[in-house]
Amino acid sequence: MTTLKDLQIIIDEAVKKLNYPAHPADLYEPITYILSIGGKRLRPALVLMACDLFGGDVQAAIPPALAIEVFHNFTLMHDDIMDNAPLRRGRETVHQKWNQNVGILSGDAMLVEGYKLMMEVDNSILRPVLEIFNKTATAVCEGQQIDMQFEQQTDVQIEEYLEMIRLKTAVVLGGALEIGALIGGANATDADLLYTFGEQLGIAFQLQDDILDVYGDPEKFGKQVGGDIMANKKTYLLIQALETADAITLAELNHWLSLKNFNAPEKVAAITAIYDKLQIKENAFKAMQTYADASFKALEAINLPVERKQYLKGFADGLLSRDN
Amino acid sequence: MTTLKDLQIIIDEAVKKLNYPAHPADLYEPITYILSIGGKRLRPALVLMACDLFGGDVQAAIPPALAIEVFHNFTLMHDDIMDNAPLRRGRETVHQKWNQNVGILSGDAMLVEGYKLMMEVDNSILRPVLEIFNKTATAVCEGQQIDMQFEQQTDVQIEEYLEMIRLKTAVVLGGALEIGALIGGANATDADLLYTFGEQLGIAFQLQDDILDVYGDPEKFGKQVGGDIMANKKTYLLIQALETADAITLAELNHWLSLKNFNAPEKVAAITAIYDKLQIKENAFKAMQTYADASFKALEAINLPVERKQYLKGFADGLLSRDN
Repeated sequence: MTTLKDLQIIIDEAVKKLNYPAHPADLYEPITYILSIGGKRLRPALVLMACDLFGGDVQAAIPPALAIEVFHNFTLMHDDIMDNAPLRRGRETVHQKWNQNVGILSGDAMLVEGYKLMMEVDNSILRPVLEIFNKTATAVCEGQQIDMQFEQQTDVQIEEYLEMIRLKTAVVLGGALEIGALIGGANATDADLLYTFGEQLGIAFQLQDDILDVYGDPEKFGKQVGGDIMANKKTYLLIQALETADAITLAELNHWLSLKNFNAPEKVAAITAIYDKLQIKENAFKAMQTYADASFKALEAINLPVERKQYLKGFADGLLSRDN
Repeated sequence: MTTLKDLQIIIDEAVKKLNYPAHPADLYEPITYILSIGGKRLRPALVLMACDLFGGDVQAAIPPALAIEVFHNFTLMHDDIMDNAPLRRGRETVHQKWNQNVGILSGDAMLVEGYKLMMEVDNSILRPVLEIFNKTATAVCEGQQIDMQFEQQTDVQIEEYLEMIRLKTAVVLGGALEIGALIGGANATDADLLYTFGEQLGIAFQLQDDILDVYGDPEKFGKQVGGDIMANKKTYLLIQALETADAITLAELNHWLSLKNFNAPEKVAAITAIYDKLQIKENAFKAMQTYADASFKALEAINLPVERKQYLKGFADGLLSRDN
C-alpha cells in the first residue's frame, strides 16, 4: 500500500498541473491561490486509498481526488466569507485578498470545476459517482447552515450537534472513500461500508478536534488552545457541559459565557476547570471511541482479506491518535 | 407545436412540485422563494421547445428544463448579492429578505440541485448533457466576472462587450436548446446548430435590451426607461458612442458621465440626444440584425423539414420584435 506521504505528493503534483485560464484573472487566480495554500490533502488522499484498497488503478482516481479537493476548497472559500475570516492557514483569505464578490463568484466557478473533474470517470460509474458527489455537496451545505444557526440558537442538543458535524465534516470523508471504492471496482455493498467507515471516522475526528482545542498540547497544536472557549463556540464539550452541569456549576458556566469583556486565559482556565469537574473530556473521548468503533466495524465487514485493510485501519488509528 | 404559453404552464406546474426539505429552513426556503417569484421561464421553455423540435418526449425534458431554471435562479441569487440589489421582479431579494450568508449558501445548494435535476436524463446522453451544463455554468461565471470588471474599466471595447454578453446571457440560451435537442434525439451536428441559433439569438436579444432601455415605450417597458444611462452602465450604446463620437461630442458625453449630481431626466435626455446625433440606435439595430441573421442561418442548416422549424423561427422573430 502506498503511504499517505506518497499520496500527498501525487496530489500536490496533480494540483500544480491544474491549469485554469488566464482570463478573467479575478475568476481563476483565486482558485489557483486557495489550492496552493495547501492543507493536508486528506480528502483526496482518501479517494486514492480507497481505489487502491480494491486493487484499482490509482492514476485513474487522481481527477476525482482533485474534484474532492477542489470542492473542499470551494466550501472553504465561501465559509471564510460567511465567517468573516481574514486568514486561512496563516494566509489571507480570498475575500480579504481580493474582495467579497470575487470570493463568491470564484467559489461558484470552483464548484463547477469540481464537477468537471469528477466527470473524468468511466461511463460505467459516472452516474453513481456523481450521485455521491451531489449528496455530499448537499450535506455540506446543510451542515454549514445548521452550524451558522447554532450561533443564534441557545439550546443546541448534543444529537443536533452530532448531526451537524456529520453533515458538515464527516460526509465528505465518507463520500471521498465511497467514490474511490467505486473507481477501484468495489461493489455497491463494499463501497457503502467504506462510506460508513469514513463517515463514522469523520465524526470521531471532529470530536477529537473539539477535545484538542481545549486539551491539546500548546506546543504542538496548530491553533491557539482554548480558541473555541474564548469564542463561546458550541462544541461537543460545551454542549455536554451545559447539559450535565448542576445548578451552581451551570450558573458559573453561564456567567463566563455571558461576559462581554474578559481576560482570555482566565476564561479558558475557568471553563476548562468546569469541564474537568464534569469529566467532559472523558465523556467526549468515550463518544469519540464509540464512533471510532462503528467506523472500524464497517471496515471489518468489507469483503476483503484482513491484511488488505490493515493500512486503512492503521491510518484511522493514527488519525485519531494525533495530539495536534 | 406546443406554444410558449403551454410550455410555461407545464414549467410553472413542475416548479411548484419541486419539493425541498423543511430543514434547514434557511437553506431551502430561499430556493422555493426565488423560484416562486416567477419570471418568464424562457430558458426552461427553450429546453422543451428543442426537445419537441426533434420529436422527443417533452415529459422527459421537464427535469432538465427545471435544472436550467434552477441554475438560472442560482445565478440571480448570487448576482443580486454582488450587485447589492434590494429588489428582483419587484420582490425582496434573498439576501435582503434573509441575509447575505443565507444568499451565498442557498445559492450554492441551488447549483447542486441544478445538477441533480440535470442528471435525470438517460444514461446514453448523461455525459454530453452534463458537459454542456458545465460549459454553460463556467461561461456564466466568466461573463459575470467580466461584467463586474467593466464597472472599473474605462476603455471597454465593443468586442469585449459582445463577448461578455455572449458569456453571461447568450450561452445559457444556447445550452438550454442544445440540451433539449439531445434529449429529443438530435444528432451532435444538429444539436450544435441549435446551440448556435440560441447563442446568436441571445446576443441579439441582449442588444435589443440595451436599445429598449433607452428607446423603449415608457408605457410598456417594465423598467424605468433610461436606467442604464442614469447608472453610466456600459451598454452597447454607450460603448459605441464613446468609440464613434467626435471630440466635441465626446467631451459633452464624458461631462455627463462624470457628474456626481445630476437631474436624471435631463441626463437621460442629453445622452439620448447624443446617441441620436451619432445614430447609435441604427447602429445597434444593425448589430442586432447581424446576430439575428446568424441565428436564423444556423436554424435553417438544421436537417429537419422547413415547416418543422417554423415555430422556433416565429418565436425568435417575436422575441426580437418585443417593445418591452
